[in-house]
Amino acid sequence: MEIQALVDKFKVGNRRALSRLISLAENGFKDARLISKELFPLTGNAYILGITGAPGTGKSTLTNKLVQLIVENGERVGVIAIDPTSPFSGGALLGDRIRMKDNYTNQNVFIRSMANRGRLGGMARATKDVITIMDAFGFDYIIIETVGVGQSEVDVYGTAHTTLVLVVPGMGDDIQAFKAGIMETSDLFVVNKMDLDGANKMVMEIESMLDLNQKVEVSRSKYENSAMEQQSWRPPVQKVNARRGNGIPALWEQIMSHRHHVESKGVLECKQLNRFKNELLDILEERFKLQIDQILDPKENPSILEDIRAITERKANPYSIAEKLGKRVIESLENGA
Amino acid sequence: MEIQALVDKFKVGNRRALSRLISLAENGFKDARLISKELFPLTGNAYILGITGAPGTGKSTLTNKLVQLIVENGERVGVIAIDPTSPFSGGALLGDRIRMKDNYTNQNVFIRSMANRGRLGGMARATKDVITIMDAFGFDYIIIETVGVGQSEVDVYGTAHTTLVLVVPGMGDDIQAFKAGIMETSDLFVVNKMDLDGANKMVMEIESMLDLNQKVEVSRSKYENSAMEQQSWRPPVQKVNARRGNGIPALWEQIMSHRHHVESKGVLECKQLNRFKNELLDILEERFKLQIDQILDPKENPSILEDIRAITERKANPYSIAEKLGKRVIESLENGA
Repeated sequence: MEIQALVDKFKVGNRRALSRLISLAENGFKDARLISKELFPLTGNAYILGITGAPGTGKSTLTNKLVQLIVENGERVGVIAIDPTSPFSGGALLGDRIRMKDNYTNQNVFIRSMANRGRLGGMARATKDVITIMDAFGFDYIIIETVGVGQSEVDVYGTAHTTLVLVVPGMGDDIQAFKAGIMETSDLFVVNKMDLDGANKMVMEIESMLDLNQKVEVSRSKYENSAMEQQSWRPPVQKVNARRGNGIPALWEQIMSHRHHVESKGVLECKQLNRFKNELLDILEERFKLQIDQILDPKENPSILEDIRAITERKANPYSIAEKLGKRVIESLENGA
Repeated sequence: MEIQALVDKFKVGNRRALSRLISLAENGFKDARLISKELFPLTGNAYILGITGAPGTGKSTLTNKLVQLIVENGERVGVIAIDPTSPFSGGALLGDRIRMKDNYTNQNVFIRSMANRGRLGGMARATKDVITIMDAFGFDYIIIETVGVGQSEVDVYGTAHTTLVLVVPGMGDDIQAFKAGIMETSDLFVVNKMDLDGANKMVMEIESMLDLNQKVEVSRSKYENSAMEQQSWRPPVQKVNARRGNGIPALWEQIMSHRHHVESKGVLECKQLNRFKNELLDILEERFKLQIDQILDPKENPSILEDIRAITERKANPYSIAEKLGKRVIESLENGA
């Protein structure tokens, strides 16, 4: 059995097996299930960092610098790049690619781009399987780099232990627009390109948004995590110049400080409950979706064309047909499809 | 029964009943099902126009002009605004709002913003119900205005009879980026702000992209619609200045020309099959999602916390728990939940 053979190689540190298992999990729900069964028990050691921000804020440059820092600390890191404009995904200027080459060839670094999955669907589920596999492989850190703030297919904040939101001066309007989303899904703000005009102003703007948000945050967490004795956390705002490396050690200290917070009483448990609740949702949604897709596919279910014709001719309405099809979805799921 | 009473008023042209039924359909799956049962048989007369494009391309201004034109032709039009930056959604400059007021108060125009639904989920399903309701009310045209090109929650191209993609000169790079998506989901290109430098260059760029795309398009449609005798359609590129009204009559002619194409042999049937297949997918996905959400909600299902703890303690893996929960989802669906 191919997966078992790959898992054996994987367990002795074979990077090609790592890469192959990731591909299998990405491309097939059933393979993902088998792989999770084998590898999930080995997980739980990696610390997951999420790096989000609009295109052009320098996510990849920052990721690159953090990767270097982690490796210099003698630890191992996996990177999952979801942003299609990321240099990790091949969307880079040549200069970036060359600079990143060092990391690509380092045995303690593994970079995986998922940028082209967007249209294939199942992104949320697949990303979580890649995390499982990287975690099981023994990476100390996993960095997820994505555009997503709030609206992304991949809920980074719901998955990562620490989520960094990158901004650059001059994006003030966008911040206003995304305010609610950003506030709720950030553990740490990073103002990149700190040498630009307006960097200090931007820090102040974020700080005052955080002032306003504090009260809301408290009442919200009381409601949602009533069972959890969760400590409050005010996201720090760190200025950096990722390209030159300015502020990176200070940023790392902030990340470690948040890690300490997360690993303190209650917070990790709360994050884990949330993370795996999301993962269950992704798995269940994809499982049902696969079956729904089959029922709606004329190749698998030729009578669907008649059903839709009944709608176009107004002999039936979409809900009544959906009701009937829903029963068939349930039947085929019961029959172990 | 409230819905029945509203439907009765709706059928005699009561706009408050129209508005109320839309709200009910938006906010509840079960109400939407009841409303569809009542109103779907009355549909099939409206012609659906999709207007998409990045923020700032002038979608609302164009929509406004098309609304005026439709009303001047003695016909009735409903507008569904999904773009949160749209003036219809309250994101307008004051000038725009004032200009739009004429249309707001016209009895032959009905405007509905769905901009704030994004976070509530079920957007795709709800949008289609709003179309059903507006169609049943007797609007000759329904205009859907949304940012969405390809990645949107609402697949406008899969729903509308004619989809317009708006661009403005100087967006060349974005077009390149979205090329594949734009080509596949446009019936008509509109180059707005035609007086800007680069408008002609942009037209040429689009035309040459269309040249390249033609071959791909032919082979693709042969595969997908082998049963359909579908005529080929090359999207025209129309320059306008929506604010001043330049090019709007010519654009309307292009729209009518595409309408003629759609209503010719095979095309409409193909579009309808696709549209209602998507609608069935939306309904089925939401139906299963509602049940999945319940199973994952500790208030509805307290034992979910134990299930997730088994995962966090690595006594189980997410797929095995999902399997168990999936069975419960099926059971509760069978019991008519």
